[in-house]
Amino acid sequence: MAIQAIIFDAYGTLFDVYSIGRLADKLFPGKGDALTALWRAKQIEYTHLRTMCSTYKPFWEVTQDALVFSCKKLGLDLTLDAQQALMAQYAKLPSFPECEQVLRKLREQGIPLAILSNGNSQMLDAVVKASGIQPLLSHVLSVDSVQKYKTAPEAYQLGTDVFGTGARNILFVSGNCWDICGASWFGYKTFWVNRAGAPLEELGVTPHGEGTELNDLLAFVEREQA
Amino acid sequence: MAIQAIIFDAYGTLFDVYSIGRLADKLFPGKGDALTALWRAKQIEYTHLRTMCSTYKPFWEVTQDALVFSCKKLGLDLTLDAQQALMAQYAKLPSFPECEQVLRKLREQGIPLAILSNGNSQMLDAVVKASGIQPLLSHVLSVDSVQKYKTAPEAYQLGTDVFGTGARNILFVSGNCWDICGASWFGYKTFWVNRAGAPLEELGVTPHGEGTELNDLLAFVEREQA
Repeated sequence: MAIQAIIFDAYGTLFDVYSIGRLADKLFPGKGDALTALWRAKQIEYTHLRTMCSTYKPFWEVTQDALVFSCKKLGLDLTLDAQQALMAQYAKLPSFPECEQVLRKLREQGIPLAILSNGNSQMLDAVVKASGIQPLLSHVLSVDSVQKYKTAPEAYQLGTDVFGTGARNILFVSGNCWDICGASWFGYKTFWVNRAGAPLEELGVTPHGEGTELNDLLAFVEREQA
Repeated sequence: MAIQAIIFDAYGTLFDVYSIGRLADKLFPGKGDALTALWRAKQIEYTHLRTMCSTYKPFWEVTQDALVFSCKKLGLDLTLDAQQALMAQYAKLPSFPECEQVLRKLREQGIPLAILSNGNSQMLDAVVKASGIQPLLSHVLSVDSVQKYKTAPEAYQLGTDVFGTGARNILFVSGNCWDICGASWFGYKTFWVNRAGAPLEELGVTPHGEGTELNDLLAFVEREQA
């Protein structure tokens, strides 16, 4: 079955979060890596807890909560200036160098493209507009509209709803292996952009395709469409 | 309103998981802390993902999966012997030194006690029997019966179901702050055993009581019952 649409995760998939770590290390010398790792882990943990308990709060706020906790835990003095600077970085993340060209080539093949992200619309709009990829996207979908974070099925269903086709006809692309597992469980065809060469999560799921950057996706799509 | 029952989390609350870290460091010198921290984080992450996606698997298996992933991620060669030794440690965790006496004093006040844990019954039974606290417990509840891990409301509801009273009449005690948040959202009165002096999770929840070990719970209960 040909791929009828491709849905991308945003942060770490299309948009490079590396600059956040760099800024964190500038603000807290020698602690940037530890802060970035804990901040990211807490951010995702909080989305899980809030989804399981139906206590949704937008991703921007959850991200801020996770930053505050992480600094307390690591004994870092988070000034309001530092907090604002770190959060502001989220709104101006660059896309990965190959991103625009890969999306353009997929569009030239007539495949509609979308983003489906945990980020709330305001966060997503800022970063999508700044990156210049907006004209290539049919939809920018935020879980905010269902008030449940990935990996809840309600979040993934946003994609099948807008494209009006079954999940097995849609390719879901993410840099996060847990997101790939959730999307696979939902029924999507999946492609893992494994930039860091991480081991596969032990969740009994194997993505349909895997690569180290978005260009690898082009070859995968070509094979699938053949 | 008086406390009509007390429900305890198991691992890290009544049972001391410290020996797992010690064994991990013996098996992987200098890497025990990193392995234990990642293993624990992955174990909980996998329970979240499997709960959100309705792909439940018993805690024993999830714990094993998390161990396998963590060793791969850290580049540690996990032999079958090492895996079995680490997992076996889970079945023979000692209770904290003050545990039995505190539970006994609570029972002497006529308060029924229970455990409500992510652990599947086989895991829990082994550790409860070995610790000698079994005669003090009215119920040992496993989320296995609802196939959803904490912090899903269905998991916490096991406690209100067996005691046949509202959550606000029951005190929920845990060493994990995320568990305290989930239990508080469900409606329980909560007491956080914060042994490590960790900061409160930034989830908008404050436990009704907090202490550094189980003896602090006695004073809290006394105040509440007065």
